[in-house]
Amino acid sequence: MTNEELLNPLLEFLKIPSISTLLERKPDMIQAQDFLINLFESMGLSAFTIPGKKHDAVYAFKNQDLRLPTVLIYGHYDVQPEDPLDEWKTAPFEPIVKDNAIYARGVTDNKGQFMAHVMAIKSLIERDGKLPVNIKFLIEGEEEIGSVSVAEMAKTHADKLFSCHYLIVSDSEMYAKGRPSIDISLRGLLYTEIEIETSEQDLHSGQFGGVADNPANILANVIMQLKDEGGRVYIPDFYEYVIWPTKEELADYKSLGTTATQIMEEGHFYGIGGGEHEYSLNERRWSRPTLDVNGIWGGYQGEGSKTIIPSRASAKISMRLVPNQDPNFIYEKFEDHVRSLIPPYARVSIKRLADALPYKAPTTDPSFGLLKSCLKEVWGVDPVYTGVGGSIGFVPVLANALKVPCLMVGFGLPDDNLHSPNEKLNLENYYNGIKVMMKFLTDLPSLSPKF
Amino acid sequence: MTNEELLNPLLEFLKIPSISTLLERKPDMIQAQDFLINLFESMGLSAFTIPGKKHDAVYAFKNQDLRLPTVLIYGHYDVQPEDPLDEWKTAPFEPIVKDNAIYARGVTDNKGQFMAHVMAIKSLIERDGKLPVNIKFLIEGEEEIGSVSVAEMAKTHADKLFSCHYLIVSDSEMYAKGRPSIDISLRGLLYTEIEIETSEQDLHSGQFGGVADNPANILANVIMQLKDEGGRVYIPDFYEYVIWPTKEELADYKSLGTTATQIMEEGHFYGIGGGEHEYSLNERRWSRPTLDVNGIWGGYQGEGSKTIIPSRASAKISMRLVPNQDPNFIYEKFEDHVRSLIPPYARVSIKRLADALPYKAPTTDPSFGLLKSCLKEVWGVDPVYTGVGGSIGFVPVLANALKVPCLMVGFGLPDDNLHSPNEKLNLENYYNGIKVMMKFLTDLPSLSPKF
Repeated sequence: MTNEELLNPLLEFLKIPSISTLLERKPDMIQAQDFLINLFESMGLSAFTIPGKKHDAVYAFKNQDLRLPTVLIYGHYDVQPEDPLDEWKTAPFEPIVKDNAIYARGVTDNKGQFMAHVMAIKSLIERDGKLPVNIKFLIEGEEEIGSVSVAEMAKTHADKLFSCHYLIVSDSEMYAKGRPSIDISLRGLLYTEIEIETSEQDLHSGQFGGVADNPANILANVIMQLKDEGGRVYIPDFYEYVIWPTKEELADYKSLGTTATQIMEEGHFYGIGGGEHEYSLNERRWSRPTLDVNGIWGGYQGEGSKTIIPSRASAKISMRLVPNQDPNFIYEKFEDHVRSLIPPYARVSIKRLADALPYKAPTTDPSFGLLKSCLKEVWGVDPVYTGVGGSIGFVPVLANALKVPCLMVGFGLPDDNLHSPNEKLNLENYYNGIKVMMKFLTDLPSLSPKF
Repeated sequence: MTNEELLNPLLEFLKIPSISTLLERKPDMIQAQDFLINLFESMGLSAFTIPGKKHDAVYAFKNQDLRLPTVLIYGHYDVQPEDPLDEWKTAPFEPIVKDNAIYARGVTDNKGQFMAHVMAIKSLIERDGKLPVNIKFLIEGEEEIGSVSVAEMAKTHADKLFSCHYLIVSDSEMYAKGRPSIDISLRGLLYTEIEIETSEQDLHSGQFGGVADNPANILANVIMQLKDEGGRVYIPDFYEYVIWPTKEELADYKSLGTTATQIMEEGHFYGIGGGEHEYSLNERRWSRPTLDVNGIWGGYQGEGSKTIIPSRASAKISMRLVPNQDPNFIYEKFEDHVRSLIPPYARVSIKRLADALPYKAPTTDPSFGLLKSCLKEVWGVDPVYTGVGGSIGFVPVLANALKVPCLMVGFGLPDDNLHSPNEKLNLENYYNGIKVMMKFLTDLPSLSPKF
């Protein structure tokens, strides 16, 4: 297939404003489903929708030969809202190719990335008249609203529709331009909210200052008692089940030569002060758990001065968890620890707002070595194992339900403006992504004696 | 004069909605000035306005005999807004007498209290045909908006219009129903705002958690480093110039037998946890300085979870100061201390938002003993010296400029609903206030050989 033939379906697809969070985009969401079903059917796959709580997922498959390995490719067709619109240099849903990149909302997150897989399959069929593996696609429409149906879908369909030997996800990014990488871990999440109350209403700070306690002080003490000066989390047994990266993974982290300046420039922040000081930067952001205050509030926040002692002070506090920390276990320890820090007369409410499981890829599976060699061949550069500091909730859910290795290989770049104006995907990454996947799928059957 | 004659002018006056903070009430403010000028002139005093930045003050005087002592009585004719209106049981500007109290906005803060003085003067003139002292009134219209012109007025008029031997202010409350008191100290105020910034924008807590510092943690540490576990303020030299109550004052504080339960019920709060644990409750709220967080904020405060590391965290932090702490000196120490707690890479801005001087009455002046004996005679109960935990900015300004003792004697009660719906003043307090002042002014000339 020519580059133009590989690109055009993506450009068409990018014109559909499939924003899952906006009610008024429901017709566009359905148009995106229809687009995909037509595309899959035109390639000779069977395709249909699977009901989702808010938006249906698109499912497609082609069984080539049941003695061959089966690969399930995950993607999502929903995109983030485009606002702030006035910061876009081109219209978000009128895709344009310039400076060797495609600019459009959703091009890297995630339409361009899963379309690279679709185009790899299409190319293989056109080239060989058949596929080297059995292929399945699950393209959901609810990723940007928290993949609210994936857990239930996985439970329902793990044994039949979704059953496979490998799960492949391209919903992340390469380590850097020209430097391919495989994501071998995701951090999980435990997100809580604490409210401390010491009086029925705000108090006059003159009248009661010196006798009434201040909930902001109690809260500040709680925050200080959650981490020590070296950045280590104080919660009892917090690190009990943490597992460590393998030697190979650590060597890869180290080989990157990541510097503090580099990370600070990437995030536009002023100093490396978070996390456990005794670990390397890449371990701290990828393989070690963290605890952060996400929000804090209480009392008077307006202009000027209001002389009150607040009745309540609150904070949102979340933890990034790593394999094999269990959110339920950690929450219990967190709650006990916080309650132990509250004076007996103060009232405290602790809520659990969200959580996600961590994930660790089984890099000893030979498919990881194969993927590395395919990446090296296409890019001409040694690929590296990297971690993802954030959470991708559906990955551990699907991988655990299907009990197969999940290969996470991103074709995006750190400067692709995900969730921001002027989202882009470099053309080279799109085309190389297709090449890598054609190669990987072709060689996959040779790996294991079971096939 | 009959009770009715003493009450009616106040009831008339309370109908004027003289709310200084509302622009649309300007005509009512002027009506209140006219009311007072007419009243003073009808009593044979000279009266006129003194320009204020927002609202003019009313000034009145009668020189009886320049060999007699001169007394300046301070009051304010402006009142707080009436909202929330739906919580009033009667209309705020339609004064009503029921259950032995007058209900109206501003009746205790401060119209009823200074009118007791006016009626005392009127009664003395009607009874004796002359006054036992020279009398001056300064009734300002900007108290509820921070007495913004008093400092300048005091400077301009200290030597002539305002010159006096005693300053009398009734803008506070008795210790309890049936228990008269004299306020012998006011706490000052130093109000600041701190903002700590560690990044240009909020960061993704997954991507940068473990490497980026969190401004909420830095802020929590600042807050924790401002007071120790015993409630003592950590700022270097904070207590350097603090002066102590006299033995008599401490004995009075103690004689009240104030309990924790009593204060907690008064403020509707749940535990005594603020201030310096080693001091008695009354010292802690009246004679010891404090430090409190008045507001705190940063990051995400909305519903649910947003996984960010905030770029900024802020707090409003204020101190109640006692004689002879100097706000300038304390601010310098506070700023140095806070800056020393900020990591070198973080940005901090510290603002000084407001301050007020503390005040300590010279209780060794014989006028205090005289006032105590007048209170005892009228109420039949031993009066006590009490402190005021809050600040009344104009008192130290006037007292310092005029270099005279300020006698603060409140006729209100703790449950009078100042600044709240259903403000009231007990009739007994109003009438007894008039009696006390008639007695005090009559006996004042006997005090000192200089008159």
